[in-house]
Amino acid sequence: MPKAVRAPNPLVVNVSARHCHLSPAAVETLFGKGYKLRPMKWLYQNGQYAAQESVTLIGPRSRVISNLRILGPCRDFNQIELAYTDAISLGFDIPVALSGNIKGSPGCMLMGPAGFLELPEGVIRAAPHVHMHPDDAQFYGVKNGDFMKLRIGGPCSMTFEKVLVRISPDFKLEVHIDTDEGNACGLGPDTPCELIV
Amino acid sequence: MPKAVRAPNPLVVNVSARHCHLSPAAVETLFGKGYKLRPMKWLYQNGQYAAQESVTLIGPRSRVISNLRILGPCRDFNQIELAYTDAISLGFDIPVALSGNIKGSPGCMLMGPAGFLELPEGVIRAAPHVHMHPDDAQFYGVKNGDFMKLRIGGPCSMTFEKVLVRISPDFKLEVHIDTDEGNACGLGPDTPCELIV
Repeated sequence: MPKAVRAPNPLVVNVSARHCHLSPAAVETLFGKGYKLRPMKWLYQNGQYAAQESVTLIGPRSRVISNLRILGPCRDFNQIELAYTDAISLGFDIPVALSGNIKGSPGCMLMGPAGFLELPEGVIRAAPHVHMHPDDAQFYGVKNGDFMKLRIGGPCSMTFEKVLVRISPDFKLEVHIDTDEGNACGLGPDTPCELIV
Repeated sequence: MPKAVRAPNPLVVNVSARHCHLSPAAVETLFGKGYKLRPMKWLYQNGQYAAQESVTLIGPRSRVISNLRILGPCRDFNQIELAYTDAISLGFDIPVALSGNIKGSPGCMLMGPAGFLELPEGVIRAAPHVHMHPDDAQFYGVKNGDFMKLRIGGPCSMTFEKVLVRISPDFKLEVHIDTDEGNACGLGPDTPCELIV
């Protein structure tokens, strides 16, 4: 049985609801020339925010998701992150992928107040991952790209066996799982969580 | 590390989509005096079926689920089994419970072609469970009410730590998980599954 360790920083596990990341060019296409995203709510990772702006996603069966939140700041690629429950209801067959690995994923149509944007690819389910500072990585004895386990306690106790490690001096220790995963394990504010090497 | 064992019967893991079980009286209230459910599709467990009939569930925010499938045959109580994703979208705060343990769970309104039925309780999220024959139980060395672990392989590998054992001579070896759990682990026809004592 792998030995459980305690992190020097408190472990935070957060559920990422469906959202998208957009390039500055995509924001201009959807919201108008020169448009900049406006932060609505700051997220746990420094500098990351949920924007006031959202878009409408149009899927292959012409079903839509309204109010798909944009996370800022802008990136240099466009990516939509859905849970499988979302994807199935929309008619998408999406891969589980690490953020940025969108090659081969399906595309979609986005609609904003100033126009449409057709994406040839970019709709994925994000694999569970943990952001951590190099100090956390040293504590756990892991390196960027490793996998760890996340054990969730409580009445719906389960262990996620493949949690990707992402390390940066800008990161705070935080696991991201999606809504299917969060609902499956019944994650709440008092649910015991433990990262296992 | 617990020892993994192989069952004498092939292990089947199936996802239960949201559904309800109704009493004969409830069926008559919703569909008319003397009405009997008609099997549409036989399920893996002997004698169990998805009925041709479905109902509309009306939740606390007046949001509805149309075409909530009824599973037959009738039982002596009324129970609605939802995933957390369903419950959240409807505005329900539902407990994780073993089938039949509906005390304290929220109620709801059901609508059928012949009338409404207000249930004072009965909306739950069913805990993951495994149906098994006494021979399977002997093989695994478990008894009714025990918990086992279910390990799911593949790209979204995870282990469900609390799978309730239900034993009956009428049962075939089959694990039931809900749609959140099935989507979280990306369960497909070729996904490796293993019951662990």
